[in-house]
This record gives sequence, C-alpha cells and structure tokens, in this order.
Amino acid sequence: MQHKFKRIPRHIGVIPDGNRRWAQQRGLPKEAGYHYGIDPGFALYRQCLELGIEEITFYGFTQDNTKRPHEQCRAFQKACVDAVMKLTEGDAALLVVGNTESPLFPRELLPFTPKRVIFGRGLMKINFLVNYSWQWDLSTALKKLGLEGTFNKSSFPENIASADISRIDLIIRWGGRRRLSGFLPVQTIYADFYILEDLWPDFLPEHLYQALHWYEEQDITLGG
Amino acid sequence: MQHKFKRIPRHIGVIPDGNRRWAQQRGLPKEAGYHYGIDPGFALYRQCLELGIEEITFYGFTQDNTKRPHEQCRAFQKACVDAVMKLTEGDAALLVVGNTESPLFPRELLPFTPKRVIFGRGLMKINFLVNYSWQWDLSTALKKLGLEGTFNKSSFPENIASADISRIDLIIRWGGRRRLSGFLPVQTIYADFYILEDLWPDFLPEHLYQALHWYEEQDITLGG
Repeated sequence: MQHKFKRIPRHIGVIPDGNRRWAQQRGLPKEAGYHYGIDPGFALYRQCLELGIEEITFYGFTQDNTKRPHEQCRAFQKACVDAVMKLTEGDAALLVVGNTESPLFPRELLPFTPKRVIFGRGLMKINFLVNYSWQWDLSTALKKLGLEGTFNKSSFPENIASADISRIDLIIRWGGRRRLSGFLPVQTIYADFYILEDLWPDFLPEHLYQALHWYEEQDITLGG
Repeated sequence: MQHKFKRIPRHIGVIPDGNRRWAQQRGLPKEAGYHYGIDPGFALYRQCLELGIEEITFYGFTQDNTKRPHEQCRAFQKACVDAVMKLTEGDAALLVVGNTESPLFPRELLPFTPKRVIFGRGLMKINFLVNYSWQWDLSTALKKLGLEGTFNKSSFPENIASADISRIDLIIRWGGRRRLSGFLPVQTIYADFYILEDLWPDFLPEHLYQALHWYEEQDITLGG
C-alpha cells in the first residue's frame, strides 16, 4: 500500500512503552520484554528514513526507571546498548543524551555523548535518551549559569543538557498511556501527541502511517 | 445520575480550547467566543468542589496568544478578568500566575499575584494562568539564581515562577487538539492527558465525569 502525505513531521519523538506488559501476556518474566523492542526500533528507523523524516528521538530509559528491580534495569540497559549498536550499521547521525555521571549509564554508550557521531551517510539524526531525567536536563542550565555567572534570556532553552535535540513535532507513544512521563519537557512543548494502544514489541509499520495520517490533519500554531 | 469514583485526581489542569472555532460556527466574529467560556468555567469549578477536587488550574492566555489580533487579545483578557472576579464569589483560594511586567497583563488581576488570596471558605485552590509563558516560568529559576548566586539541586523546580502550583494529575483539554501548548511543563511531567473533541463553550458536566471515569482506570507510576 502506497502512502502519500501532505505534510510530514520534521522530528518524531518515540515512547516505546509496554515491553513488560507484552512479556507478561506471554508468560515471560517482565524483563524479557525489552529485547523484543530492538527490532521494532530498527524497523521504525528504516521506515522513517524512507519517508524522509529528518530526526527521531527514542525514549530509552530514565533515572526514574532505574528504581525498578535489578534484572529489569540490566535488561533495558542492554536493550539500549544493542539498539544503538544496531543503528551504527545504518546511515545515522547518532546522539545519546543522559546523565553519564551515574554508574547506571552504560559505558558502551559513552562514545555517542556529548557530541553526535556520524555513521554511513548520516542521513537521519537519531537521538537516544539513556539514563535521562527531566530534572537533570533542565537543571543543567542552572549549573552552567552557576559556573559562568552570567544570565541572559536565552540561556534557559539553550543551556539545557538536551540542547542538541531540536523541537519535536509529533510524539508517538505505544502502550496506551496518555502522558509524557518526563520526556524532554522543553522540546515537547508544542508537540502533537498520538497514542497507540498496541504494546511496543507489537509494532507494525501501519502504526506509523496511522500517526502520520492523523498528524497531517492537525493545524500547527506553535502556541500562537 | 450518580457518579462514584475509586480514585479522583488531586489536581486537574484545564485547557479550555475552541472558543474561536465555536464563535465561527455560529457566524460570530472569532473574539466573541471567549465570553461564552466564562459560565462553563464556573460550572466546572462548582462540579469539582462537589467532588472534592483540591486544586484546579485554568490555562487562561499565554504570551504566545498575545500575538493575535488586538480585538481577540482584548476579548480573552476581559474573559479572564471576568472569570476570576466571578470566582471570588465562591469558596476559592485564588492565585494568578503570569508575567505581570508586561502591559498585556490585566491590571485588575494584580491583587491575585504573586500570593494566593482566600475567598469565602477557601475550599479549593484555583490557579489561573494569565499572560503566562513557559520560557518566562522556567527562566525565572535562572534569574533568581543569577540574583542569589548559589546553585543547589532543588533550585530548579523550586524557583520557577509557577512554584506555588502543585503537580498536575489530570489534564483535560477541550477542542480536540492533542498537545500541551506550553502548559506548565514542570507540573505536567507525569500528568495523564484526556482530550474532548467538544469545544470549550459547549462544556457539559458529563465531560468531566467521562474524564474522571477514564482517569480512575489509569495506573499512576510517576515515571517509575
């Protein structure tokens, strides 16, 4: 089936929720679900590349999430590392954003932070939030101000930790929850929010097309 | 009809969108719609009071909105003033939050800022965002830091301009748009988001009940 769009988002934010519920539905331990989220991410990346989407941000895991049982933490850390490594095989300009000063940040991902790294033809910007926290993100602006000692009006959005991630046009969340859960508060300010009831490991290309067909009908006002 | 809830939100955020579309549908000039949003707000307040909701925040108007034509600005400024004045007749603890340093902030609302004012028995906290801007809200924390010169980890959420507004549990948006449009980025981090297609002047008590019945089925994780 051919899909044509009047207008596509420049930047899509992806909240790939529902891995644990998916595992439980299959009688697997909760942590087993994360592994099944890797191939969907890669499929979504290829589909976006084909459509000409310029930037995607994946919500990997947060500092809030790391309060979960140890096996779950190990499983989502590994899934993030595996996903980023798989993306290095494509044509991505990869950036990982998260608090690297914690032992919960996987060492394998340090090379992708704090600067973006180009792979292949670097056709699409892909951002991965890993050990991310909205407080950490926003308070980095304060920390920088504390160090530099000068205040100017734009230091707020320009000095946050995630400043290299651009404004998000469309957020797609799998797993039915209708909330941001701390996902990039500054970049999502004007984003349109599309929810799928399907759990993330049940990702289908049709989900993205649905979201894009909905998105092309929205008016864009940026708060005006 | 009697409504019982297993669990109600402590704090509801209200995005009363669709006034201009409502006016246009009736062949009225766009700015005529705002006046018809006042009674719905008061009806919603009374309904929340009856249900025991502790706090409501209304998204009045933003600094982004003030770029609209002059007649529209005058109309939404007047509607906000009228709504707040009407609420002083009830049992509310009223707070107005917005940039008062601009001529676009209505002078009549200065008494309700920067501290909350108690009316009647002060049974419910009601916050009104007036000439609000998310950049202004967040960068206030930077400004305070610039003045005080000391950084501590909690100065971020504690020093924003809207710091006296608590975390929001449930956002209800009328008018079908699925986005935050700059509504209190810090307080809405973990909020559940309920959208009604109906335009705000078409408010019905049933809308709130629908939202609350949906909300009681959501799990609350606060990002965990």
